[in-house]
Amino acid sequence: GLQLQLISLLYEEWASYSVFYKYQPIGLVRKYFGEKIGLYFAWLGLYTQMLIPASLVGVIVFLYGCATVDDNIPSMEICHPKNNITMCPLCDRACSYWKLKEACGTARASHLFDNPATVFFSIFMALWAAMFMEHWKRRQMRLNYEWDLTGFEEEEVSDHPRAEYELRVMQKSLKKEHKTQKIGVTFAIVFGVILYRISTKTALHMSNNPTTRSNVRLTVKTTAAIINLVVILILDEVYGAVARWLTVLEVPKTDKSFEERLIFKTFILKFVNAFTPIIYIAFFRGRLVGRPGSYLYVFESYRMEECAHGGCLMELCIQLSITMLGKQLIQNNLFEIGIPKLKKLIRYIKSKRRSFQEEEREKKLQRYETDHFLEPFAGLTPEYMEMIIQFGFVTLFVASFPLAPLFALLNNIIEIRLDAKKFVAELRRPVAARAKDIGIWYNLLRAVAKVAVIINAFVISFTSDFIPRLVYQYMYSPDGSMHGFVNHTLSYFNVSNFQDGKEPMDPQHQVEMCRYKDYREPPWSNTPYVISKEFWAVLAARLAFVIVFQNVVMLMSDIVDWLIPDIPKDISLQIHKEKILMVELFMKEEQGKIQFIDSMMPCGGKEKRNNHAPIARSRSIPHTHSHTHANNF
Amino acid sequence: GLQLQLISLLYEEWASYSVFYKYQPIGLVRKYFGEKIGLYFAWLGLYTQMLIPASLVGVIVFLYGCATVDDNIPSMEICHPKNNITMCPLCDRACSYWKLKEACGTARASHLFDNPATVFFSIFMALWAAMFMEHWKRRQMRLNYEWDLTGFEEEEVSDHPRAEYELRVMQKSLKKEHKTQKIGVTFAIVFGVILYRISTKTALHMSNNPTTRSNVRLTVKTTAAIINLVVILILDEVYGAVARWLTVLEVPKTDKSFEERLIFKTFILKFVNAFTPIIYIAFFRGRLVGRPGSYLYVFESYRMEECAHGGCLMELCIQLSITMLGKQLIQNNLFEIGIPKLKKLIRYIKSKRRSFQEEEREKKLQRYETDHFLEPFAGLTPEYMEMIIQFGFVTLFVASFPLAPLFALLNNIIEIRLDAKKFVAELRRPVAARAKDIGIWYNLLRAVAKVAVIINAFVISFTSDFIPRLVYQYMYSPDGSMHGFVNHTLSYFNVSNFQDGKEPMDPQHQVEMCRYKDYREPPWSNTPYVISKEFWAVLAARLAFVIVFQNVVMLMSDIVDWLIPDIPKDISLQIHKEKILMVELFMKEEQGKIQFIDSMMPCGGKEKRNNHAPIARSRSIPHTHSHTHANNF
Repeated sequence: GLQLQLISLLYEEWASYSVFYKYQPIGLVRKYFGEKIGLYFAWLGLYTQMLIPASLVGVIVFLYGCATVDDNIPSMEICHPKNNITMCPLCDRACSYWKLKEACGTARASHLFDNPATVFFSIFMALWAAMFMEHWKRRQMRLNYEWDLTGFEEEEVSDHPRAEYELRVMQKSLKKEHKTQKIGVTFAIVFGVILYRISTKTALHMSNNPTTRSNVRLTVKTTAAIINLVVILILDEVYGAVARWLTVLEVPKTDKSFEERLIFKTFILKFVNAFTPIIYIAFFRGRLVGRPGSYLYVFESYRMEECAHGGCLMELCIQLSITMLGKQLIQNNLFEIGIPKLKKLIRYIKSKRRSFQEEEREKKLQRYETDHFLEPFAGLTPEYMEMIIQFGFVTLFVASFPLAPLFALLNNIIEIRLDAKKFVAELRRPVAARAKDIGIWYNLLRAVAKVAVIINAFVISFTSDFIPRLVYQYMYSPDGSMHGFVNHTLSYFNVSNFQDGKEPMDPQHQVEMCRYKDYREPPWSNTPYVISKEFWAVLAARLAFVIVFQNVVMLMSDIVDWLIPDIPKDISLQIHKEKILMVELFMKEEQGKIQFIDSMMPCGGKEKRNNHAPIARSRSIPHTHSHTHANNF
Repeated sequence: GLQLQLISLLYEEWASYSVFYKYQPIGLVRKYFGEKIGLYFAWLGLYTQMLIPASLVGVIVFLYGCATVDDNIPSMEICHPKNNITMCPLCDRACSYWKLKEACGTARASHLFDNPATVFFSIFMALWAAMFMEHWKRRQMRLNYEWDLTGFEEEEVSDHPRAEYELRVMQKSLKKEHKTQKIGVTFAIVFGVILYRISTKTALHMSNNPTTRSNVRLTVKTTAAIINLVVILILDEVYGAVARWLTVLEVPKTDKSFEERLIFKTFILKFVNAFTPIIYIAFFRGRLVGRPGSYLYVFESYRMEECAHGGCLMELCIQLSITMLGKQLIQNNLFEIGIPKLKKLIRYIKSKRRSFQEEEREKKLQRYETDHFLEPFAGLTPEYMEMIIQFGFVTLFVASFPLAPLFALLNNIIEIRLDAKKFVAELRRPVAARAKDIGIWYNLLRAVAKVAVIINAFVISFTSDFIPRLVYQYMYSPDGSMHGFVNHTLSYFNVSNFQDGKEPMDPQHQVEMCRYKDYREPPWSNTPYVISKEFWAVLAARLAFVIVFQNVVMLMSDIVDWLIPDIPKDISLQIHKEKILMVELFMKEEQGKIQFIDSMMPCGGKEKRNNHAPIARSRSIPHTHSHTHANNF
């Protein structure tokens, strides 16, 4: 009865897209699915809510980029019709010299993600993350209070050793070095993954087909990114298995620790998997290319690919958007809805085949019967995992992709209702489990937020041209303006210094000097092609920026931590009030007992006992805070 | 009776130097002085204990420095008899050219504090600090458990608004911008202090008297350091007053917040006061000196002082040791023992004068009467403050002064017994106050530990020659050895380029090139005296080191945090066991009641009630955890 009402209420008020703008009825969710799932949806709700301001600011930053694209002197200089700087070929023999003008489009586009506003935005997002953590602490506290969890501690049941563990202990094969071995294996695999991803990426970008390589097109990059995405999606499934296998090897003591270790490993592997290609593009692409005349070659004849003019930021951005959108669309929607529906269908058909006379009953099935055809509840890990990876996309590279929060927001608005539908309709009703916090996930979020600060610092100072522009403006610019920046970032190369067989096949004979993006001495200096003073100056500036950025942001987030109290004022007051109330109450009760004993009146004593004593018995022990009693009066 | 026994016990077992090697009887201390003071001594004990390994490693590092001083190629090169590098004069006109040989002593000495071991040591100390924090959390938890504080919360009494506050509120003059004003004032003062200290330091070091300036002697530095110390000691007292004044201006709501704000301000002021001169020497001395021919002048004719050859590290070290030792000896011992004794004497004499017939009674005074002649208890703030400043000395500049932990250890071994004596003998017995943690002091410790990481990173990379040596060895050294490093760090100056009136008065006519410690182009380059490529390369290396060091150390301390559980395993098990015990107990009790009600036997019920009910009444509410009950069975 009540359950049916509840489920129908959840259908209307929660599991439908029509109410996407409303707060979720967390109370109901908790009533029907238990605290653990309630907390997940509360967290998801707060996260989505917090994404609104973030995506607003992100959009503004992006618009600022669009608005200022025409007053951006460097891209103006590149696109200027009269500019005819001859660039050195981007690959050996096949590629020919090219005019800087050709890079006009990329240069203009990359300004969208490479302007002072993005610096501000990445600081903003770091503080946003700190704010989000704090608000979640408060929300959690509030829910704990409203749900009578303040005194609740994790079931000790889950602390009982697992059978496998005890078996292992009996086998006496659980030695220290054994453990360390396992940890070693884990890290080995993680680094293996990194290397593998980078090498594939490199291979993918290396020049084997001259015709396609001869001009670096956006299409090429896009397809590359898509291939990448597919690889990521496939590997994601593989890594899930790997993590489980590793954890089984480790033989953790309790189910709880088993789950936590599993989550931790899965997180690391999936995170690495999702972000390696991006990190590769952000920090390694186009760094180790060497210089014209002595390029760096991997294997025998594969030359590392350079970034298009205007930094790798553009490619980074494409990679980010495609990976993020792709993951969300394919993984979440296709896998999360499609697969379960399919399984359900199969299971249904199977049972259909079994017998014909059942058909009658099938028509008037009870919920608990239809449940049989539903997917069993697989735990919240995948949901959280997906969200934390998304949180990574929102915070880690936000400096180069200010629209990430918007994408995340749009996804989550759907995601909430999607998960809601799944829990209400597609899954068997899970056993209600108590929990007072989101456990290890909170720590993982913190970790991501911390890493985000340093990664953003590096993206701004090394991937974008922000620092070189500043350095030029304040150290080298004759008139303190950005005019001449492009020329300043390009070094000269004397084509006569090409190694034999490396020079372009169709020699435009008028060229004897070509330019390349690097800070090196010109051919006519007495130390030609060695790294120039400008390079070191810029490098120093970049590193200095990283230090300043990281420490300032960390300080600011600490201040945010410190300004926002963990327990909402009203709640702490409530708890205190109720404590006092309880003291008086118990006093009364005891006095009552005494009177009752002295005056020998069982009935009076009885009802008194029935009022208070049972509560004292049933509640006052498991709960630490005593406000819970007060709730019952 | 009991009290007297207790005090005499404390005398023997605690407040005497003869037991310095023993653990303190914290239990007794807590019984006599209350939890708050008990926690202070427990903390001081743990801190001192933790200092033992730190000082051991410190001594080893120092000895390593001593042992390797003779194989240190740079100082060997400087001291080499055949080396006759002519250095540019250290001041205008009065000073003459000098031979690098003269810096031999300093160079050898500074190796003691500027060798690879110190890098290791500062990492070690950062982890040590993290370890200390964690251990203190555990110790605190254990004490809370043993002292039945697990459920105790700060007295709500102290949350009542202070009279001054309510007055203020009535005057309606406590507006937001008012508050911000006050905060503004605070920071203004803090920065004022910094500027003041730096300027005094500069003035102190600036060349007004040619004869003393003509040769930079250790004696000069030492006296300077001592003068500094005196200034610090005087200002310390001033700042105490300033902080109080500022806090009074702020009119905090409750006594608790008043105390915390006061502590916070006092801490900041005293900290700044203690460390500004040191920070000045570490990071500003000898940086902004300009170069021969165009020195930097403050005011009209005062030239910034350079560091002796071998970096400012030596001077930093002297400043550190003198400040630290001086503060400890004078402030702690003289002020802490001398002043109280004096006051006691005065008070005693006064009372003596009052009357003669009292003399008789005076002879057979009771403790509570003699108490009248004692100093009233002024709170633990000064004790903690002194210790946290010391913690600063131990962690902040440990890279340049590895003996700091040893000094701290020696001081604290005395300090513990000294404070003990003070509490037992010199002070009126304070009102026992409950507390379950050391409050704001813990946060301040954390803050200091955090700042320490970044400061040590900068000391190693900017104050010491560690990075320049590495850069030389791996980038410039012809044979990968340190040979020629000294020569590499010295730039050339053509004496003909001296401005008129700045060249030395006694011209040694054979000199036409002198050397100075900087990375600048030589006079014969086509851009003479401009900052050279080496400078930028070294700077980049230094900044890179800071980034790597800071992040590695922070990561490692996080791991330490995460590896050491906050609650000792045995304690958490105990608490859990006792909880279960309590549940059963209460069940029994309730059943007992029921039986007793049904069978109408008051006596049985009575004794049962006397057993359990009073406990249920008196204890089960104020304490959150129920183990306290179990203690009573």
